[in-house]
Order: sequence, then C-alpha cells, then structure tokens
Amino acid sequence: MRIAVVQTSPQFGQVEANVTAALIAMESVRADLYVLPELFNTGYNFATTDEVEKLAEPSEGPTYDAIAKFAQRNSCYVVYGFAEKADRIYNSSSLIGPQGLVGLFRKVHLFYREHLFFAPGNLGFPVFDLPFGKVGMMICFDWIYPESARTLALRGAQLIAHPSNLVLPHCPDAMVTRCLENRVFAATANRVGRENRGGVDLSYIGKSEIVSPRGEILKRLENEEAVGIVEVHLAQALNKHINEFNNLLSDRREEAYTTG
Amino acid sequence: MRIAVVQTSPQFGQVEANVTAALIAMESVRADLYVLPELFNTGYNFATTDEVEKLAEPSEGPTYDAIAKFAQRNSCYVVYGFAEKADRIYNSSSLIGPQGLVGLFRKVHLFYREHLFFAPGNLGFPVFDLPFGKVGMMICFDWIYPESARTLALRGAQLIAHPSNLVLPHCPDAMVTRCLENRVFAATANRVGRENRGGVDLSYIGKSEIVSPRGEILKRLENEEAVGIVEVHLAQALNKHINEFNNLLSDRREEAYTTG
Repeated sequence: MRIAVVQTSPQFGQVEANVTAALIAMESVRADLYVLPELFNTGYNFATTDEVEKLAEPSEGPTYDAIAKFAQRNSCYVVYGFAEKADRIYNSSSLIGPQGLVGLFRKVHLFYREHLFFAPGNLGFPVFDLPFGKVGMMICFDWIYPESARTLALRGAQLIAHPSNLVLPHCPDAMVTRCLENRVFAATANRVGRENRGGVDLSYIGKSEIVSPRGEILKRLENEEAVGIVEVHLAQALNKHINEFNNLLSDRREEAYTTG
Repeated sequence: MRIAVVQTSPQFGQVEANVTAALIAMESVRADLYVLPELFNTGYNFATTDEVEKLAEPSEGPTYDAIAKFAQRNSCYVVYGFAEKADRIYNSSSLIGPQGLVGLFRKVHLFYREHLFFAPGNLGFPVFDLPFGKVGMMICFDWIYPESARTLALRGAQLIAHPSNLVLPHCPDAMVTRCLENRVFAATANRVGRENRGGVDLSYIGKSEIVSPRGEILKRLENEEAVGIVEVHLAQALNKHINEFNNLLSDRREEAYTTG
C-alpha cells in the first residue's frame, strides 16, 4: 500500500481555501491512505473560544463532505484533523474511506493553550480494520506519552496515523523510538507556516515523516509545503519477534511495572 | 552533583583485570556517582551456562568488595552491572555507597541469548533516595520498553542509571525520548570492544551518554575507552511542568490506555 503525508500551510480561519489546497496537494499523488495535519482546515492558533466555536464542525460537516468525495472518487482513505463540534468541542481526527466515515479519534493529551479551547478526548485509542491493515490515530502531543502508541500497538494497530501541528523539535526523532518500541509504522503529517495571533507566535517545523517498524525514516519532508509518499507492507508490523528469543509485545512484564 | 559514565572494554572472564581497569578509569575523575557497564566485571558474551555459573558472584562478592572500598574511600556512589549468584543467576546491577550496598536491580527484560543464562529480574524497578536525589536503575535492553523508564519516573526517580552492553545502534537516540517523556536524567554506561565467542560475534557501540530532562545530550562518548563526566542538578527532574498548562506525569490519562 502507499501512504502519503500531506504537509500543508493552513491560513487561519480560511476553511474553504485550506481544504481546497489540501485536495490539490492530494490530487498530485496516488495513495491508499493520505494523512493530513491536525486542524488542517481551520488553522491551529485560536485566540478565543468564540473563534473555535465558530470554526468547529460536526464530524460529518462541510470539511467531511469535501474529503469524503475525494475518498469515494479515488477509492482511498484519508485521515485529517479538525475542530469537532459535538457535546463539547474536541481536537479530533477522522478516518474517511470510500464509503464515508470509518472512525473518529479525539486528542487525549491536550497541549498548552488547547486546554482553553478543547475538551480532552473521551474515545480512548480506537483501531480500525482497513483492507490493507489495522490503523489507529493519535494527534500531535499524544506522541510524548508512550502510552498512546503502546495502547494502539496492543490493540493491533500496524500503522499510526498522526496528524500534527509541531512547534517543538523533538517529535520527528521520537517517532523513531515509538516505531521501534512497538514495531509499527507511523505517518506523522505536520504543517508548515507561522501563526502570530493574540500575542502567541507559533512557527511550525514541517518534517512530516513516515517511519518503519525497524525505526527507518522512510521519508522525511523539509519545512515547506509538500507531499511525502512511501510504499509499505503493513504486514511487517504484525511480526513482533526481533530475534528467536524476543517478542517485543508478549515479553512485556506488567507485574514489574507497579508503582504503588 | 557530578555523574560519570565509565566506558570500559572488558576482557571476557578476566574479572580481576576488568575491575582494576574500571577502578583506574574511575580514579581519573572525581564524581558523586559513577555508572559502569552491564556485566562490566565478567564480559557479556557467555557461551555456556557453566561459564556464567563460574563467573557469577553474590551481591557482596569480590567485585562488590573492590567497588565498595572505592566508594567508601571517595565518599561516592557507584552503579555497576554483574552476574548475580542468588537463588538463581540474574543479570543485575548494584548501587554502592560509602556505607556499602544501597540497592540491587535485576534486569527485567532479557535480550536474545541472555534467556539461556539468566533468570528474569524479580525486583521490579526500585528507586533509592540518595543525598543528591532519587536514583533508579535499568539495564541495557530494558530501554526498549517505555514501561521501564516510566515506572522509575512514576516512582520518583530523578536519574536513571543505565548499565549497558549495546550492540544495536538505536538506544543512544532513544534515551533522548526516554528523558523527554519522563523529564528525568539518564546516564547510559556502555562498553566498547568485541567478543567473538562460541560462534556469536558481538561488537559494542560505545556512545555512553548523559541526557537531561529536556532531552539535551550533555555528553556522548565515541567508541573508545573513556570516562564522560557532567555536572547536573537533579532537582530539575522534579519539575514535570513543561508549561503553565501541562504536567507530564499528572496529565497521564490511565482511563484512555485500556486495551481490552
């Protein structure tokens, strides 16, 4: 299968233009699964709760409509991040397939001022069985909690789709550790550009990447709008044996991890 | 306080010479805590169970005597790895202080052929309260399980002393992730040299290192016998706030990590 990480430069609040720009980038390559950044349609750097309430959409709102059309027309899957209007407002990602909405994830670990604008995710770390393998999602700062990727791997995820808006430098290298320790693939789709709003000046680092279960960086983008595409065999992530004696997941020793 | 990682080149089975070489290296610098490699006194690449039974020592055996004398004379602490003869044989590390044995750790996650020679550790991940801060231990391959460093951090460890015999390239960079995700210091003491025994040819990568809670590599050695020394303030590892909204440990969301 072919995975694409789509590194866009969203303009804050310009939902229609951002979705169009992403679709144009996606049309430029043929993939089975496209991963877009966190909050790719709205931009990230909200200044007020009014803004996020105005820009949030239900999981089957206008952004969904545009992406679902693409997925149907191209018989492919897309993961994208958006501000989800539900009982509360979540920093969410959707997994869309040719038939429509397949799965929803709500960011579990909110970062910094996101605490002002979003409710913490309440769906855990679900995993979805797709024709090419099992896929789970986490969003941006979820990376720093090893429990996120670990939970996904223990639930059978072979690929972690990871919409992001990274401003700090650590995540791209840390995702190598996440893939090694879980023997999974990961596709981190970050954004580029700068948002200086309400006294908070954020620059995004790019470096979207696709990493293999052996910790190989199969593709890492620079800091500019681009699409990275890699062909992978997700079945590789099923084999947790790293030698004849060691199976990475079944060798876990829960009884040794007590903290009480 | 000053931490030293002591990167030696043990000769297989030459316990007295290996201990002497380590002590000479340790005498060359003044530190509050010295960390030596895994199995620093015996060498690593056992070919038979007879060999390991012959070279294993109780936790207060001859190697202990020599190290304890150094710790007493220099009012310092030392962590070193050795084959421990107890009810079974463990791949262990001891923490020695001016008054003698402070703590013992038994490698929880055995790697590869170690399964033939050692019993898995049965002491969990204990943490010890020293004058300069709380210190826990893990040994080599324990690094690949995020649960190891996480358990130590949740138990209050400010510094992870990490005796190692690394043959694969991933650990030094992964320890940056371990420190970032837990906001702890880590001192990985690896060995150098090559052991080609019983048809198993192992070359050790060196790269002993000391990493800060912010993921800074304060010191990383090359692949030769050397001592790396760094002055640190372990109190930095007490602060788990990474900004005004986020506390790395208390923001964990156990209820989201269910896999059932």
